[in-house]
Amino acid sequence: MRVRHKSWAKPYIESHPELIVTNPEEWVGKWDSRFPKQQPLNLEIGIGKGQFIIEMAKKHPEINFIGIELQESVIAVALRKLVDEQLTNVQLVETDGALVNTLFKPNEIDKMYLNFSDPWPKKRHAKRRLTSSAFLGSYKDVLKDGHQLEFKTDNRGLFEYSLISLNQFGTNFEYVSLDLHNSPEQEDNVETEYEAKFSQNGPIYKIVINFKTE
Amino acid sequence: MRVRHKSWAKPYIESHPELIVTNPEEWVGKWDSRFPKQQPLNLEIGIGKGQFIIEMAKKHPEINFIGIELQESVIAVALRKLVDEQLTNVQLVETDGALVNTLFKPNEIDKMYLNFSDPWPKKRHAKRRLTSSAFLGSYKDVLKDGHQLEFKTDNRGLFEYSLISLNQFGTNFEYVSLDLHNSPEQEDNVETEYEAKFSQNGPIYKIVINFKTE
Ligand SMILES: C[S@@+](CC[C@H](N)C(=O)[O-])C[C@H]1O[C@@H](n2cnc3c(N)ncnc32)[C@H](O)[C@@H]1O
Ligand SMILES: C[S@@+](CC[C@H](N)C(=O)[O-])C[C@H]1O[C@@H](n2cnc3c(N)ncnc32)[C@H](O)[C@@H]1O
Repeated sequence: MRVRHKSWAKPYIESHPELIVTNPEEWVGKWDSRFPKQQPLNLEIGIGKGQFIIEMAKKHPEINFIGIELQESVIAVALRKLVDEQLTNVQLVETDGALVNTLFKPNEIDKMYLNFSDPWPKKRHAKRRLTSSAFLGSYKDVLKDGHQLEFKTDNRGLFEYSLISLNQFGTNFEYVSLDLHNSPEQEDNVETEYEAKFSQNGPIYKIVINFKTE
Repeated sequence: MRVRHKSWAKPYIESHPELIVTNPEEWVGKWDSRFPKQQPLNLEIGIGKGQFIIEMAKKHPEINFIGIELQESVIAVALRKLVDEQLTNVQLVETDGALVNTLFKPNEIDKMYLNFSDPWPKKRHAKRRLTSSAFLGSYKDVLKDGHQLEFKTDNRGLFEYSLISLNQFGTNFEYVSLDLHNSPEQEDNVETEYEAKFSQNGPIYKIVINFKTE
C-alpha cells in the first residue's frame, strides 16, 4: 500500500505522544506502563489504516493491543481513528516490524496478527515477506510458548509461500481456511480495510499457527 | 466415486492375472518380479479408472508403477485401458490402500501419488481420509527416506484438513499450489479423469511433501 505524502501526518503524530510511539527503543521493557490496565498483549504488524486493530480492541477490552506500521502517512490515519474512538487499550508504534525482537522481551506477546502483508512477489525480495524465516524467528522470540500467530491474505502467491515457510520453520498448523468468507469462521471474522475493499476479487486465505516448544 | 456393478468386471479381472493382482498378500517381497525391468517403483492409491497412472507410465518408461484401487468395477475399467495400451510398466492391485505397509517393504517405494481422494466430509469419518495420520504413517513406512508424496484435489475441505494433517505429522512441504491450473507447473501436469471433468468448478489444489528423516 503506497500512500501519498500527507503534510499533516508528522505534526499530528508528534501531538499525540500518549497514543503513538516513534522512538520505540526507549520503551523496551516499559510497554505495560503505556496502558492503564495490565492485561494480555496482542501485536499486529503492518496495521495500515488501523481498521482491524481498532475493531479488535473494541471487541476485546480485556486485551492490550500494539500496532506497528512502517509508513508515517498510513499510521497517521490509524491514529486519527484511534483519537476519535478514545480507546485506552491500543498503542501505535511507527517502526519496522523486522525489529520486534529488539522491542519486546521474550514471551512478552500473547498473540500476533499479520493481515494482507505486502506480497513482495519477486523471488529476490522473498526475505522482505513478513512470513519469511528471519521474521518468524523474531516472532517466536517474543511470543509466549505455544501461543498463536494469525495470518490472512488474499494473495495466492504469498499464501503458498507462507504455508511452506511456516511448515519448514517447524510451526504447528492449528487452522487453515482457503476461503475464509465462505467458512463457518467468517462469523467471527474482523475485516481489515484491505479485506473489505478487495475480497470480491477472490478467496481470502487464513492460517493460525503456534510455535512449537521443542 | 460410486459406480454401478459391472457383471463383466470380475471375469475380466480374473482373465488378466499378468496385469492385476487380487491377492496382494501373496506378492509381498516379490513385486519386482511382475515387471520386466528392475527400476524405481511409484505407487498411486485410489487410481479410479486409471487415466493418470497410464499417462504417467507412458511418459516415464524408466519407472514402474503400481496402482491400488478398492472398487472392482472401477479398477476393471483401468485394466481395460491398460490392456489396450500394452504397457509393461504398470501393475494394478485391487485392495484397500490402508494395507500398503503390509504389502510393501520399508523403503520399497520411490514416490507416491494421491489424486482426488474421497473427501469423507463428516468429522466422524476423518480417519478414512487418505491423508489422515494413520495412512501417513503407512506411507512413511514404505517410502524411501526423504522421497515425495504428491497430492491433488479440488475439495477445499479435504485440502484444508490435509495441510494441517501433513504439517502435524511432521512432513516437509516442498511445493504448494492453490490453483494448479493457473500455475507455471500446469505445463507438466498430468490430468486425472476426475480432474478433467470437474476442474471447471473451482481451483485444483496440489501439495508435494517428503517425510523428514529424524
Ligand atoms: C497491503 S497493506 C495492508 C494493511 C492492513 N493490514 C489491511 O489489511 O488493510 C500492508 C501494510 O503493511 C505495512 N508494512 C509492510 N512491511 C512492514 C514492516 N516491515 N513493518 C511494518 N509495517 C509494514 C505497509 O506499510 C502497509 O501499510
Ligand atoms: C474420487 S475418485 C478419484 C479417482 C482418480 N484418482 C481420479 O482422480 O480420477 C477416488 C477413488 O479412490 C478410491 N478409494 C477410496 N478409498 C480407497 C482406499 N482406501 N484404497 C484404495 N482406493 C480407494 C475410490 O474407490 C475411488 O475410485
